[in-house]
Amino acid sequence: MSEPFVVIGGDAAGMSAASKAKRDNPELDVVVFEKGEWVSYAACGMPYFVKGDVESLDDLVKVTPESFREERDVDLRTGHEVVGIDPEHRTVTVDDGDETFEQPYADLLVATGASAIVPPFDGMGLDGVFTIHDMDEAGAIDAFVADHDPETAAIVGGGYVGIEMAEALAARDVDVHLYEMLPHVLQPFGAAVAARVEDHLVDQGVELHLDTAVSGFSGEDVVEAVHLDDEVTPVDVAVVGVGVEPNVDLAVDAGIETGPTGAIATDEYGRTNHDHVYAAGDCAEARHVVTGEPDHVPLALTANRAGRAIGQTVTGTPTSVGDVAGTAIVKAFELGAARTGILDEERARDAGFDPVSVTISAPTRAHYYPGGAELTVTLLADSDSGRLLGGSVVGGEGAKRIDTVATALHAEMTASELQYADLAYAPPFGPVWDPVLTAAKVLDGKVD
Amino acid sequence: MSEPFVVIGGDAAGMSAASKAKRDNPELDVVVFEKGEWVSYAACGMPYFVKGDVESLDDLVKVTPESFREERDVDLRTGHEVVGIDPEHRTVTVDDGDETFEQPYADLLVATGASAIVPPFDGMGLDGVFTIHDMDEAGAIDAFVADHDPETAAIVGGGYVGIEMAEALAARDVDVHLYEMLPHVLQPFGAAVAARVEDHLVDQGVELHLDTAVSGFSGEDVVEAVHLDDEVTPVDVAVVGVGVEPNVDLAVDAGIETGPTGAIATDEYGRTNHDHVYAAGDCAEARHVVTGEPDHVPLALTANRAGRAIGQTVTGTPTSVGDVAGTAIVKAFELGAARTGILDEERARDAGFDPVSVTISAPTRAHYYPGGAELTVTLLADSDSGRLLGGSVVGGEGAKRIDTVATALHAEMTASELQYADLAYAPPFGPVWDPVLTAAKVLDGKVD
Repeated sequence: MSEPFVVIGGDAAGMSAASKAKRDNPELDVVVFEKGEWVSYAACGMPYFVKGDVESLDDLVKVTPESFREERDVDLRTGHEVVGIDPEHRTVTVDDGDETFEQPYADLLVATGASAIVPPFDGMGLDGVFTIHDMDEAGAIDAFVADHDPETAAIVGGGYVGIEMAEALAARDVDVHLYEMLPHVLQPFGAAVAARVEDHLVDQGVELHLDTAVSGFSGEDVVEAVHLDDEVTPVDVAVVGVGVEPNVDLAVDAGIETGPTGAIATDEYGRTNHDHVYAAGDCAEARHVVTGEPDHVPLALTANRAGRAIGQTVTGTPTSVGDVAGTAIVKAFELGAARTGILDEERARDAGFDPVSVTISAPTRAHYYPGGAELTVTLLADSDSGRLLGGSVVGGEGAKRIDTVATALHAEMTASELQYADLAYAPPFGPVWDPVLTAAKVLDGKVD
Repeated sequence: MSEPFVVIGGDAAGMSAASKAKRDNPELDVVVFEKGEWVSYAACGMPYFVKGDVESLDDLVKVTPESFREERDVDLRTGHEVVGIDPEHRTVTVDDGDETFEQPYADLLVATGASAIVPPFDGMGLDGVFTIHDMDEAGAIDAFVADHDPETAAIVGGGYVGIEMAEALAARDVDVHLYEMLPHVLQPFGAAVAARVEDHLVDQGVELHLDTAVSGFSGEDVVEAVHLDDEVTPVDVAVVGVGVEPNVDLAVDAGIETGPTGAIATDEYGRTNHDHVYAAGDCAEARHVVTGEPDHVPLALTANRAGRAIGQTVTGTPTSVGDVAGTAIVKAFELGAARTGILDEERARDAGFDPVSVTISAPTRAHYYPGGAELTVTLLADSDSGRLLGGSVVGGEGAKRIDTVATALHAEMTASELQYADLAYAPPFGPVWDPVLTAAKVLDGKVD
């Protein structure tokens, strides 16, 4: 096979696949088309650039384009947009800015990512109104804050992006109004996390507007106010973070099927319905470890490991992309909040489980040891089998304890089994019964 | 059954069993005989009392004797030493200090704990030479340091007690010499942990003497020097922490069998070879989750959960005491070090495995996010099956990540399965691939 492995999209999934394929088979030609100029960048780091914790956007780039080209011998072409896929003839049509050309492929990876949802608000085009999903937007927000020295910000959306941006802007002395349409922030993290994060946001001076729909923005050229149905609040800058949607148009136009979530349907090897066409990252579905059903988890680890697996598969070692648990973690000022699996009881019932849950609070260190924090742990299990379905943790430290729960989900452990896990104890690191064990113990008492 | 549930020993295992039995069956009489005056205390907190982080020894007591008696309705008798067990007639002989009496039991729990090993050193009886395994000893060390203002300390033993005491005494402005007979400190934590902890101890000003056998101490009444074979070093205080041995004499005299480790042999319900006689805590064996063989893990969680399970079993709900993984964690000044499972390749081979291991270092936060620390992770797996056998982590933060590995051991996961666990990622909490995932990934590449 003399045709190359072609990758569309130069971020986490795409570059992981390209690098791994080239490493496993140095003879293989690997071509990556990226329509922008940034590759392999840490989108998750952008709020910390705006906050000032990260000095330069370049710091967010893990591997530079030069390094991909020279050290990894990947034919990376930035400024190249793939505008068509022909799965039948195994070619893609590429626009390099000047002209278009056809590129044949042996295998193709669609890693087109996701885009920030742009809601149909009035005034979305005003200066000072931003979404935040790529590096240029992060740079623009930073520059706007530096230039305009805004006093008040509207953040629309109480998901992790909204909360991280609230922290970032507050650190730059901006008064933050946070608007969330739903009754609570961080909806996928469940009620126990939301309660503590909301209290904490208020403690940190954020004006929290829950159950509140924004209708748009107004201003001359620059944003001057955020509009609700019956209220106008003056603001000097606005960030809209209401979620992302997978970039699937290119794939759909080529007859590549999407699944129930709207992202590209894939099998356990990341294959689409077309031979030799794979999809991975924020544009693709993955299988949920608890439900076994397709899910859309547009997060960095999912993208990285699926890309890596596909890089192995196309070089002759079929490798599963792995299941997702929807594990996520977010820093909200001084709190850490994390979740994994299924926390929503209705979703659990839809998947055929009979959910029962507990929420406990316990300290992260021995009761007599200085400096601990209260950790609130929620665990959800199936009442019949005891099988763990999901969990969340929130507290001033210890949010990474969610990894214990995520690991238990992958192993299909029951609450009883987790309760008897021999977790680490010493006074500076936890109480004798780790908060996760305490939650499992209480939950075990509630299952049939 | 009108006879009570009798417990010998009022610490973690004993009081957990007594409390749980009374809670599950309030009609049952529960009698605890404790030969000392302290019950339910956190021995693991003693170094932090000596250090000054914990103000009073009373702070280390989780539940007071009064509370056990009044709130939990447990017939707790401190100052009562059980001097004989008659399994045939189901009685124990108790010495209350004035006289002895017979106490019948329906079920008996032997929770006699462990004692600090007292090596046959010269001068062990000198003032200022301490072991540290109970509250009175902790109080005595604290008082000695306050009264004598020692300039130099000898700590004998580089296990976790020795290292915690080094930190404690250093915090009180004592120059610490730490003596370890073996080539490395923290032997059960493996080479990668030892290397980093040793460097760190030296950085913190500890004079580290590895591969060095102490022969004893000398002094008039108070210790004045520590002796090696060919060297005498002046010291003003000494702490000997060379391990613990299970307190089994009482049980052995009654024909209760010990196992290969020298601790009391038990089955999965904590039962000994005698009907209605259980053993738990530091005096008892437990089953190792990886080898399936008896092990002796004298740690707090093992004791607490075995006690609790036995409290359930004797009240009619047979409950397994759970397997142990030998999970342990220790703070060494500014480092955290943790281990779980089998790290020793010879032990792995003895258990029928063909071990292969990796050690990697990775940051605990995204590379661009401030404040991270380098975490060194070791994982050991069976080369044929890929099954994980054990692991260790050491670093300036993140040592509790060992819990992910411990959970994987309980679930009998392979390196490949752990590699695909969906662990939490956000820049303040880790790199995209958590260090544990990176280690699993590299290890997976090395198994057959």
